[in-house]
Amino acid sequence: MEPIYYSFVFSIISLIGLAVTALLFLKIKNIKKDSNKRASHIADLIKLGAMTFLRKEYSILAVAIVAAFFLLTMVSNIYGGIAYIVGATFSMLAGYIGMISATEANLATTLAAKEKGERSAFLVALLGGSVMGFVVASLGLLGLGGLFYFFYGSTSADFVQIITCFGIGASSIALFARVGGGIYTKAADVGADLVGKVEMNIPEDDPRNPAVIADNVGDCVGDTAGMGADIFESYVGSVIAAMVLAVEKYAGQVQYVTFPIMLAAIGLISSILCLGFLFTYKGNLAAMLHGSTYVAIILFLLGTYGYMGYVGIDMSIFGSVFLGALAGVIIGLITDHYTSKGPIEKLAQASESGAATNIIYGLSLGFESIVGSIWAISAIIYISFQYFGELYGVSIAAAAMLATVGITMTVDAYGPIADNAGGISEMAGFGPEVRKITDKLDSLGNTTAALGKGFAIGSAALTALAMFAAYAEKANISSLDLTDPLVIAGMFIGGSMPFWFSSMTMRSVGNAAWKMVMEVRRQFKEIPGLMEGKAEPDYQKCIEISTTSALYEMILPGVVTVAAPVIIRFGFGASGPVALGGFLAGSTLAGVLLALTMANSGGAWDNAKKYIEAGHHGGKGSPAHKAAVVGDTVGDPFKDTSGPSLNILIKLTSILSLFLASM
Amino acid sequence: MEPIYYSFVFSIISLIGLAVTALLFLKIKNIKKDSNKRASHIADLIKLGAMTFLRKEYSILAVAIVAAFFLLTMVSNIYGGIAYIVGATFSMLAGYIGMISATEANLATTLAAKEKGERSAFLVALLGGSVMGFVVASLGLLGLGGLFYFFYGSTSADFVQIITCFGIGASSIALFARVGGGIYTKAADVGADLVGKVEMNIPEDDPRNPAVIADNVGDCVGDTAGMGADIFESYVGSVIAAMVLAVEKYAGQVQYVTFPIMLAAIGLISSILCLGFLFTYKGNLAAMLHGSTYVAIILFLLGTYGYMGYVGIDMSIFGSVFLGALAGVIIGLITDHYTSKGPIEKLAQASESGAATNIIYGLSLGFESIVGSIWAISAIIYISFQYFGELYGVSIAAAAMLATVGITMTVDAYGPIADNAGGISEMAGFGPEVRKITDKLDSLGNTTAALGKGFAIGSAALTALAMFAAYAEKANISSLDLTDPLVIAGMFIGGSMPFWFSSMTMRSVGNAAWKMVMEVRRQFKEIPGLMEGKAEPDYQKCIEISTTSALYEMILPGVVTVAAPVIIRFGFGASGPVALGGFLAGSTLAGVLLALTMANSGGAWDNAKKYIEAGHHGGKGSPAHKAAVVGDTVGDPFKDTSGPSLNILIKLTSILSLFLASM
Repeated sequence: MEPIYYSFVFSIISLIGLAVTALLFLKIKNIKKDSNKRASHIADLIKLGAMTFLRKEYSILAVAIVAAFFLLTMVSNIYGGIAYIVGATFSMLAGYIGMISATEANLATTLAAKEKGERSAFLVALLGGSVMGFVVASLGLLGLGGLFYFFYGSTSADFVQIITCFGIGASSIALFARVGGGIYTKAADVGADLVGKVEMNIPEDDPRNPAVIADNVGDCVGDTAGMGADIFESYVGSVIAAMVLAVEKYAGQVQYVTFPIMLAAIGLISSILCLGFLFTYKGNLAAMLHGSTYVAIILFLLGTYGYMGYVGIDMSIFGSVFLGALAGVIIGLITDHYTSKGPIEKLAQASESGAATNIIYGLSLGFESIVGSIWAISAIIYISFQYFGELYGVSIAAAAMLATVGITMTVDAYGPIADNAGGISEMAGFGPEVRKITDKLDSLGNTTAALGKGFAIGSAALTALAMFAAYAEKANISSLDLTDPLVIAGMFIGGSMPFWFSSMTMRSVGNAAWKMVMEVRRQFKEIPGLMEGKAEPDYQKCIEISTTSALYEMILPGVVTVAAPVIIRFGFGASGPVALGGFLAGSTLAGVLLALTMANSGGAWDNAKKYIEAGHHGGKGSPAHKAAVVGDTVGDPFKDTSGPSLNILIKLTSILSLFLASM
Repeated sequence: MEPIYYSFVFSIISLIGLAVTALLFLKIKNIKKDSNKRASHIADLIKLGAMTFLRKEYSILAVAIVAAFFLLTMVSNIYGGIAYIVGATFSMLAGYIGMISATEANLATTLAAKEKGERSAFLVALLGGSVMGFVVASLGLLGLGGLFYFFYGSTSADFVQIITCFGIGASSIALFARVGGGIYTKAADVGADLVGKVEMNIPEDDPRNPAVIADNVGDCVGDTAGMGADIFESYVGSVIAAMVLAVEKYAGQVQYVTFPIMLAAIGLISSILCLGFLFTYKGNLAAMLHGSTYVAIILFLLGTYGYMGYVGIDMSIFGSVFLGALAGVIIGLITDHYTSKGPIEKLAQASESGAATNIIYGLSLGFESIVGSIWAISAIIYISFQYFGELYGVSIAAAAMLATVGITMTVDAYGPIADNAGGISEMAGFGPEVRKITDKLDSLGNTTAALGKGFAIGSAALTALAMFAAYAEKANISSLDLTDPLVIAGMFIGGSMPFWFSSMTMRSVGNAAWKMVMEVRRQFKEIPGLMEGKAEPDYQKCIEISTTSALYEMILPGVVTVAAPVIIRFGFGASGPVALGGFLAGSTLAGVLLALTMANSGGAWDNAKKYIEAGHHGGKGSPAHKAAVVGDTVGDPFKDTSGPSLNILIKLTSILSLFLASM
């Protein structure tokens, strides 16, 4: 096929995707949501807080984007600058649209749970999540397809450099969104819990807690907008890495260059079909949620197999596609194992002898959990390379893992909506029956959330490695020899980065949470009647603290991440590219290890606490519960701030290096 | 010089070292120690417990040693088998002698503190530590010199293979000693603290606590015997790595092959001179302790400089010697920084908002602390290689860092003796004045202990890297290319090992501590009059639990560590050596990062607790103190079990790989 036909297919499918997104968005927007004044008021407060944060965050980022645009235009060319802006804008847009829809869905789900029952509430929450899933998938496809149309084969600009700039745009926004959102949400969460639950002994989501609205805003900006930007950049990053490798390896064979985008297109179509099935199927809710990922993957594999035969792509590469899709599931199931059943019960048991043993056991679970995942990733790398298309095969595995992002992101975004719906129902005083429904919906999302995390980390590792391979190719490094001390030195320095970065982000959460604790304590002391429920707390003040802290604290880790590869590249002079190669390997390895540990320890602590709260080991208020709360609080920045941010760190570092190499 | 002259010099100096050791040992043995019956009784219990553990541990290891002897003899030859046995035996001997002297010194220090005052007690503790320092240095030199004499240039056996077998002997014993000792000491410590301090509210080292003797035994077998075996293997490992590289690079130039052993010899002489100075100097105690390391290093550098000129070694290599000695100090000072003053005060401050913030802040300190150390290590690798003797230069830096082990180990072993003296004085009821002296002596050892840790980790990293280089040379791998997915897959699998290993060792501490907690609770419940001090607890039962658990739990991590490189080597068939190369790089990087984090977080938590106990933030019993105790308990397995064991893991993995390559 001619390139123009591919462009045609991509634009048609991405437009279909956008149309579906628009439909879903209108559907959620048009649900009647004014039947309860108190609930609407609370939902409005949350929405306002979230929008305020995004607006402020985006204004700060706008300055950085303009600066980066000029910089990239100078060192590359105007097309690179434009591609960067498009990448950054699409990322922000995906986060923004997904978040509006989530805030709408929060309220609608609560009301549905109250007025229409479980299934109805489930469908509304899923609808809310689907907007995020499909806006990410469609915008990604649109951007990549557009770049292909305008720049592939053009003589005026380097195609590789331009798509890399698009990726840098998406990555840099994702980093700030994840770090900023992560700090916001955890500062509010920790602040609310430490004073509310621990000191004042009032329940979660109690409207008397001044930080409660900030906490719910945090779930929107961290778990939803932050995750959207994160997955968007993984999605486009994996495609970009594969394309860069294809441009070199299969020069002139356009079907290989477009294959990664085509995977995204087939994945989007599969996701749409699967969504149709989800909204018409009448069976068990848990089966729907869990089954959808598998259905989408099977549709995707069938479609890809047919397509490969049709355009004549070396069928051995299908092995990589299959492995990639499989690996996401495997890593997800490992994550699920370590954050449920057996391990959790033992962790709860360990909580009986206090907070210290809870922490030790939880860390040891996180450490152990990486073994299976890392071996799975290693096996895919090795098998894909050896048998299915070499480095291109590895990168295709990463792209395949994320191709069905429409549906995996839908079920991923469903979780925070169900969670928030519970919060609103609690604050609006809807009583235990409604809360029971939202709690059940929330718990349904646990396994799928674990799957989603598996996809995020697995694809980050594979994408980073594919980028790394592309980097070595582009930098004209014939070999990155581990017996060369320069490579080793670079590797050690690279390995220190994820630790440094995590140190900064964890401490930022600590700093921000500390301010929140002081403010919440102050309000309980100074506002008369607050504890008795006679006066409303000053929610706005807490929202302000989270907003300001998050925006301030996200800057340093972001700047360090962006600056490090540049400093290594130019600091080592002529040996810069070699040192940077070692740096990349070290930061990828350490980043993946630490990210997996943090995600799984954090998840285990969270679920052990819930397990105890369900009545085991003495239930709520028991010594075991107190110990488990400490673990959960330590796990919060692990799993929602530092851990997920590391995924982006390794990808941003790789894509920046790739850009430096392509200059 | 002819090889025989070198052998002559080595044997003379090692005999001088052994004579000094014997003198020191007799001196500590002959101090009168029967002036207080209660103290003698307690000291006897501790000694008996420690000896029982060592005897049981050594019986188990004897089986493994015999098996390994036959295996090595089969795959290598009888000389390899013998060298292995010598390495293993010397390591056990060093641990044994050092520990006897420490148990003698514990009691003597307590009595000196009671009867003769601070300076006298200080000198006795130092004397006790010096036996460990000098037995390690002398036996190491004797073993290495002996192997050189018998096998260098011999045609009947491969010299490299034989010295590698010696190193494997030292490393494998060190691993089990560190892991076993680490589990023993922390199970007892955590068990004693959780029930005694937290639940029953009785002070540290209170004789009513059934686990208190086990706790003190643990300090001997973990902090003294375990550390002795650890440093012994670092010391000989660094010399072996350098010799292997020299044999290839400087074939026939015996002065280069013997240079690493000569560094050890010069270091031993410098340490003896410095010891003489220590025992005659009349000034400030802290200055004596802190100054001794620097004095020994300066003497060592002067001696080495003179020697290099005398035998005609390329003077540029002196740069590596200097950098190595300097780097140990730098890494030590970084460790010291993160475990004292500023950072500790902030950590104590963070404890005010609870255990969770204490843990988060402590972890973030540990994460941050690696940055400086890793950069220092990277700089040394790069500069040594580029300017001072290439890979040989890197290995010389490692050997130089450890050359003054006689004195660094003396001050390192001094700490636990002062600590244990405090324990005995408490249990014997000597009152606060004596305790005040021992506490002061203990705190004097803090900075030097940090320095010692810096040397241990820094040298482990450099030694592992030198081994890694020697491995690549021996395995005839022309390049270990990071763009080869096999190398990457190996690197990822290697990176997962330190996490897996730490997970196992941390959980072992948890398991053993759990049993101890149950037993201590049982005794407080079932023994009438125990709490009132009218009945003696069943110390023996607690000692048994620690002993059995430690011996049982040390097996799995040890076996995994030994088996992994063998499996990788043969599991990957013909590509085994390349995959193993990647594996080594990954496990070294992840191991160093994790070991540094654990050591420094653990140290910070420990000192933050002590800082609060000194009366800050409400002092003992305050909420901040309770939070700090949680951190300290989490830090225990970090800094005394998993962290230090990782140092050995990376070296044992490297030396095993080197042996596999030399086959």
